[in-house]
Amino acid sequence: MNEIHNRPLVVGVDAGGTRSRACLAAPDGTVLGRGTGGPGNALSVARADLTRHLAAAIAEAVPAAERHRVRAVFGGFAGAADGLGTERGRGLALACLKDALAANGVTGAAVDVGGDTDVALASATGAPADGLVLIAGTGAIASRLTDRRRTAVVDGHGWLLGDEGSGYWLGAHAVRAALEALDGRGPWTLLVAKVAAHYFPPAAGRPPYPLPGPSAPFEARDALGEAIVARAYGRPAPRLALLSRAAVEAADEGDAVALRLLDRAADLLAGTVRALRPRAGEPLAMAGGLLGPDGPLLSRVTARLDGLGLRVFPVADGTAGAVALARTLL
Amino acid sequence: MNEIHNRPLVVGVDAGGTRSRACLAAPDGTVLGRGTGGPGNALSVARADLTRHLAAAIAEAVPAAERHRVRAVFGGFAGAADGLGTERGRGLALACLKDALAANGVTGAAVDVGGDTDVALASATGAPADGLVLIAGTGAIASRLTDRRRTAVVDGHGWLLGDEGSGYWLGAHAVRAALEALDGRGPWTLLVAKVAAHYFPPAAGRPPYPLPGPSAPFEARDALGEAIVARAYGRPAPRLALLSRAAVEAADEGDAVALRLLDRAADLLAGTVRALRPRAGEPLAMAGGLLGPDGPLLSRVTARLDGLGLRVFPVADGTAGAVALARTLL
Repeated sequence: MNEIHNRPLVVGVDAGGTRSRACLAAPDGTVLGRGTGGPGNALSVARADLTRHLAAAIAEAVPAAERHRVRAVFGGFAGAADGLGTERGRGLALACLKDALAANGVTGAAVDVGGDTDVALASATGAPADGLVLIAGTGAIASRLTDRRRTAVVDGHGWLLGDEGSGYWLGAHAVRAALEALDGRGPWTLLVAKVAAHYFPPAAGRPPYPLPGPSAPFEARDALGEAIVARAYGRPAPRLALLSRAAVEAADEGDAVALRLLDRAADLLAGTVRALRPRAGEPLAMAGGLLGPDGPLLSRVTARLDGLGLRVFPVADGTAGAVALARTLL
Repeated sequence: MNEIHNRPLVVGVDAGGTRSRACLAAPDGTVLGRGTGGPGNALSVARADLTRHLAAAIAEAVPAAERHRVRAVFGGFAGAADGLGTERGRGLALACLKDALAANGVTGAAVDVGGDTDVALASATGAPADGLVLIAGTGAIASRLTDRRRTAVVDGHGWLLGDEGSGYWLGAHAVRAALEALDGRGPWTLLVAKVAAHYFPPAAGRPPYPLPGPSAPFEARDALGEAIVARAYGRPAPRLALLSRAAVEAADEGDAVALRLLDRAADLLAGTVRALRPRAGEPLAMAGGLLGPDGPLLSRVTARLDGLGLRVFPVADGTAGAVALARTLL
């Protein structure tokens, strides 16, 4: 075996609300393998499932023959920020990550965990750094990290009481806009058709109502509104976040109501960042489905923060930052 | 027995989300007795409970010796409007009312039921009438009644998707405003103290946090915010409506944030009425905890509808309308 084959390796894990990702890298950061698993929120995913999802991502990223060479692992977890009130999530995340590594025969590596904010910021800057992070996916939260601790947090209060401008916010407001169009409180919008199609997909074989237009009789509009309401209340409230797709699609098709919703969401997210009282020159990592490099709100939010002098980094994948943080453990 | 003692009697019942009321009256409308019972929403109260609540109100309103003289009964039920999609609520309400009457020995009376909107409008005008009704209590809904049928309905979509300007809306926004003050998104407000006192009442013996002010360190503000969030998510979401009292109290004490919330709620409720496309001269009955004669939003909503030429009637108690509708059954 030559030296190359004996060099130590590092693993970075980005465990998010939608999926877990793992990345195998050389000590210089060169990527050697990638893998994915199921959702990895340390507070909302059951312990056994979380361990299994992490183990799947690690197994795919790290070839069996290389596992004994892994010397350092860092995991960034949604729900496990190194801040106030999250020790429970942090401890759970660390335990699950160690179990997942052991299940793959990775032993003797230095292991640490942090929040999704930590890895997002490290992904932006390529190394551990102080700065700001805005995450907007299903939820929305902004933090300032100083010496790897959250020294300020804004929003993140969840679907019922916050997450302003998040996917949940967009989805819930898309449904509200459709209902307002149907009962006459708001202007007509493509969202009526998009929301109806979500709850009554043609694939299910029964578009139950001929879709009423804005001048349809009261009974037809009311029947569709009531049918949408019944479906929405029949599912867990957080699933309204799925309707954010309807808002984005309708905006892409030029719908004025949907465009206003995206603009309002961007206003709210920019306000969430401003509440951190950003200083000129600070890095701002933006992550999550709405704000990654292809995110539908990225340019809107960036434009609203123009003039604050921030260095903005859209982050597609937190594993780069997790690798950077794992390298600090060597 | 003289003629007075043989004359027929009527009973009006107003079964609302908070309580049920019954009223015994002479055929000319003279009130002879009143009673109250538990909540009477035909869709959200279990059948046996609904029957029991109605029976209690009727037993108190109608002396045992008079029960054989009751010839007509009308009940107005939240959740049982004579409109679309509510036949289930209506049938259930009728069955429960008949059972409650039978349990009190009232037999042989003509019995009919309608929605809370029907009795609110009849209370306003003193007789069955065409017109508009806006109800804002825990929820919010506006309707046009034509020949005792709902020919237009606006909002009423419940806490998750509508009820704009309702008690739920006010309560949820009071909590959001407190959280925004704590994390720096919004201005400081008395609502921080009011919301904290709601979730951590001094009577419970443990105000868990010294209340942080606007310039308290991040950790203190964040700890209170997280504690409020944990309490709110630990209870059924609709109970946020209880926090509407915090908004009204803070507004009474001159808090600018709370005053803006009450103004916005009034804007939303006025918009709900406007979506009915009111015609000059139509009566508008306003009912529910926020809009009755002592309701905190009555003057605000009335002012916003000035110029539409509506005849506005705040309704404290729907039993007057229920009696008016019962008299039509004689």
